Amino acid sequence: MKMKLILHVLVILLAIISLFMLIPAGIAFFYGETESLKAFLIPILVLMPIAAVIYFATRNNRDKVMSPRDGFMLVSLAWISSSAMGALPFYLSGAIPNYTDAYFETMSGFTTTGASILTAIEGLPYSILFWRSLTHWLGGMGIVVLTVAIFPLLGIGGLQLLKAEAPGPSVDKITPKIAHTAKILWFIYLGLTVLETMLLLLGGMNLFDSLTHTFGTMATGGFSPKNTSVGFYKSPYIHWVITIFMVMAGMNFALYFKLLTGRIKGILIDSEMKAYLGIFLTASLAITISLLKTDVYDGFFEGLQYASFQVASILTTTGFATTDYDLWPAFSKTILFLMMFIGGCAGSTGGGIKVVRIVTLFKLSVRELKRLIYPRSVFHLWLNKMVVRKDIISVITGFVFLYIFTLLITTVVVAAGGYDILSSFSTALVTVGNIGPGFNLVGPTMNYSFFQPGIKWFLSLAMMMGRLEIYTVMVLFIPHFWKKL
Amino acid sequence: MKMKLILHVLVILLAIISLFMLIPAGIAFFYGETESLKAFLIPILVLMPIAAVIYFATRNNRDKVMSPRDGFMLVSLAWISSSAMGALPFYLSGAIPNYTDAYFETMSGFTTTGASILTAIEGLPYSILFWRSLTHWLGGMGIVVLTVAIFPLLGIGGLQLLKAEAPGPSVDKITPKIAHTAKILWFIYLGLTVLETMLLLLGGMNLFDSLTHTFGTMATGGFSPKNTSVGFYKSPYIHWVITIFMVMAGMNFALYFKLLTGRIKGILIDSEMKAYLGIFLTASLAITISLLKTDVYDGFFEGLQYASFQVASILTTTGFATTDYDLWPAFSKTILFLMMFIGGCAGSTGGGIKVVRIVTLFKLSVRELKRLIYPRSVFHLWLNKMVVRKDIISVITGFVFLYIFTLLITTVVVAAGGYDILSSFSTALVTVGNIGPGFNLVGPTMNYSFFQPGIKWFLSLAMMMGRLEIYTVMVLFIPHFWKKL
Repeated sequence: MKMKLILHVLVILLAIISLFMLIPAGIAFFYGETESLKAFLIPILVLMPIAAVIYFATRNNRDKVMSPRDGFMLVSLAWISSSAMGALPFYLSGAIPNYTDAYFETMSGFTTTGASILTAIEGLPYSILFWRSLTHWLGGMGIVVLTVAIFPLLGIGGLQLLKAEAPGPSVDKITPKIAHTAKILWFIYLGLTVLETMLLLLGGMNLFDSLTHTFGTMATGGFSPKNTSVGFYKSPYIHWVITIFMVMAGMNFALYFKLLTGRIKGILIDSEMKAYLGIFLTASLAITISLLKTDVYDGFFEGLQYASFQVASILTTTGFATTDYDLWPAFSKTILFLMMFIGGCAGSTGGGIKVVRIVTLFKLSVRELKRLIYPRSVFHLWLNKMVVRKDIISVITGFVFLYIFTLLITTVVVAAGGYDILSSFSTALVTVGNIGPGFNLVGPTMNYSFFQPGIKWFLSLAMMMGRLEIYTVMVLFIPHFWKKL
Repeated sequence: MKMKLILHVLVILLAIISLFMLIPAGIAFFYGETESLKAFLIPILVLMPIAAVIYFATRNNRDKVMSPRDGFMLVSLAWISSSAMGALPFYLSGAIPNYTDAYFETMSGFTTTGASILTAIEGLPYSILFWRSLTHWLGGMGIVVLTVAIFPLLGIGGLQLLKAEAPGPSVDKITPKIAHTAKILWFIYLGLTVLETMLLLLGGMNLFDSLTHTFGTMATGGFSPKNTSVGFYKSPYIHWVITIFMVMAGMNFALYFKLLTGRIKGILIDSEMKAYLGIFLTASLAITISLLKTDVYDGFFEGLQYASFQVASILTTTGFATTDYDLWPAFSKTILFLMMFIGGCAGSTGGGIKVVRIVTLFKLSVRELKRLIYPRSVFHLWLNKMVVRKDIISVITGFVFLYIFTLLITTVVVAAGGYDILSSFSTALVTVGNIGPGFNLVGPTMNYSFFQPGIKWFLSLAMMMGRLEIYTVMVLFIPHFWKKL
């Protein structure tokens, strides 16, 4: 393990995050939030000199090429240490007086989960709420893309990082150069962020709320500066804008690049996108029809508005809510429960198992059924007009197995705290899947504050495992990882 | 499709079942249960002449070799028609006045699920209760093995059948001849049945209860002639005997053959058995410790008795209960919930995903983790000191995916009836997994009578899909099955 090199990259990353902390510091200054201003500046002033010392001490790396192992270690440490540092403003300002809670909230932010321990959100300083939402934006794709875009400039190849960190089984080579790819993805992300913010402003939302909700949307995060989440706003326009941008954030960003360069054909053949939109539309309609039987919403279109918002929110693993869906009829809730097993597309900011993996396993299953009928025939697995390699199938199978394994272990750990099966299982689904709100004790009007500290730390790990595609973190737990090569 | 040949075999099968119906008919005669006696004799007297006509009409089959397609069709039809006929005594005797309910109960019996629509069991005639338990015994392994043992005598190769029906991914060739294998398995099954019955008689149980509980145990079925299931008996001896026989019934029967022929080494290296016993012991101990905190049971050993009984019952997919485990602490219940995802061993009468599949996928996942560290190395998957072939892994992956898919579809169908998520999801788990009792509305003191008829028919299908290893039934639903070769 090249710990010196890893440390070197890590302090650069932390320095970048501390630069971003200057934005909420500015907001604190603007609104005269003295306590918060101190809470942002103290970590920067204390930690940055230390980081500078480490930076110079670890500068001389003869071998700047990272092995996969170094990559896994770096990525895991990146999330652990970013959360450790990012939690300080919450803790020092007194907004979250308990460090365990502050760490949980920050990990939930950087992993774009959106599970919160806050019981009263609206009373908090603007700067704190802004930082909370900014962790989403940075975490969702920002940190990944930034590190991938900046590291090559520092002479460190980004390929291993991208391999370890890319959300989804395929990165889809947009351009040959990783750094160039990263920059393009970053501009798409930034462009969509600006667009959504403007659309929300047009809908009458103020700038602060537009920005924070956009951060939560584009990162498929789910933190809202409002106690009742997006439900605070009654405007159908705002609901629909956020629904559409959640769906867009859950799509493979490589498709936007193809759209920009006019390669429409590459979009139309994308099996994952078709399945993703199909699931979204089917589930939204099913819930709308189920809601018609109740008299909660005013007709089909209002029902569709609330149903599609919630389906988009859960499917893309965002976790916003416009209503307390835990009060919906059993059938509607069960559809949302199913959505928790799916997740966004590969190459999006969404979490979960991801649509492409489910599509691949579905196709594999159909192939196995065909093989039972024609035992002597050979069938290939096709995805986007390409044959899926056998080792890719193994990687996907292993992933899904480890994902379910992680879900069940998390369920047991939560249940050990004395919570019922549905609460425990849905907590596992929404933390490992980076969704945020679940059912019962962790329903959309509830929060995570009541869990014992041990469970909060475990859930922080669960969120990180889900965000880093399970493998990246789990590989650290097998003995081979620590053997000398 | 050789429908003529399929029909020919089918009527032989139904004739065998009607022979077994003579046993409860005898019991009805002995106890003077006139209505029941009629209910057994009428179907036999009406259907058997029809069967005889069909038998002779379909006798001339030039080509007696069945294709896999014919096998799948035959096996599926075997369960559908056996249940249709087996339901008649329940319906005609008035014990179950509704045919939908009678069909559900019989399918639950033949699939060794043990889910019951009966609200008061103890008031029913002896003959009816005996038939109910006998469907388990026949279904669990009896019908499979009988058909496999008798068909070769009729000049029909049994290999395709065994392939379609064998519970588990590998049949483990005990002897080269399938018919011989089937006979050996049948003798082991019969031997263990006699042994358990004798041990229960020694514990002071009467002959009727000993036999019916043994049928429920050996088939991992779960029907009991008592309203409170095995909980009716307070004797720790009886609880332990049934616990041990449930665990034995959930093991691969090929291992008993190896034991009888002194090939101990083949048993000791069996990865599945080791994992199975490891899961059983770990879960039992975890629940025992969790129960210690409550004061329900008198100390460690009584807790262990109830815990290990319930773990064995759920893990092996039997479904007996000695207590209302739905009142246990959340942690204990969650462990049982996890057990519902596992199931028995391949080649046992148990249902579920099966331990060997989980062991294989676990090993595959560990291999994938190793590959991340050593990307250039080739790792084989080893099971029982043999390399697992790649197409076997595809079959297992496809199975587990379709199993989970079936679970989720079943959950949605049940939820469409207006039932809560946990009830719906656990209903899916315990019907597809052939377990029987679940949580909440389908908890161990509850029953399935309240479901709408449509849901009962769907659950009958779900039980059959689970019992016939998903593939066998699902293959009928893909268009290729119906294409001309």
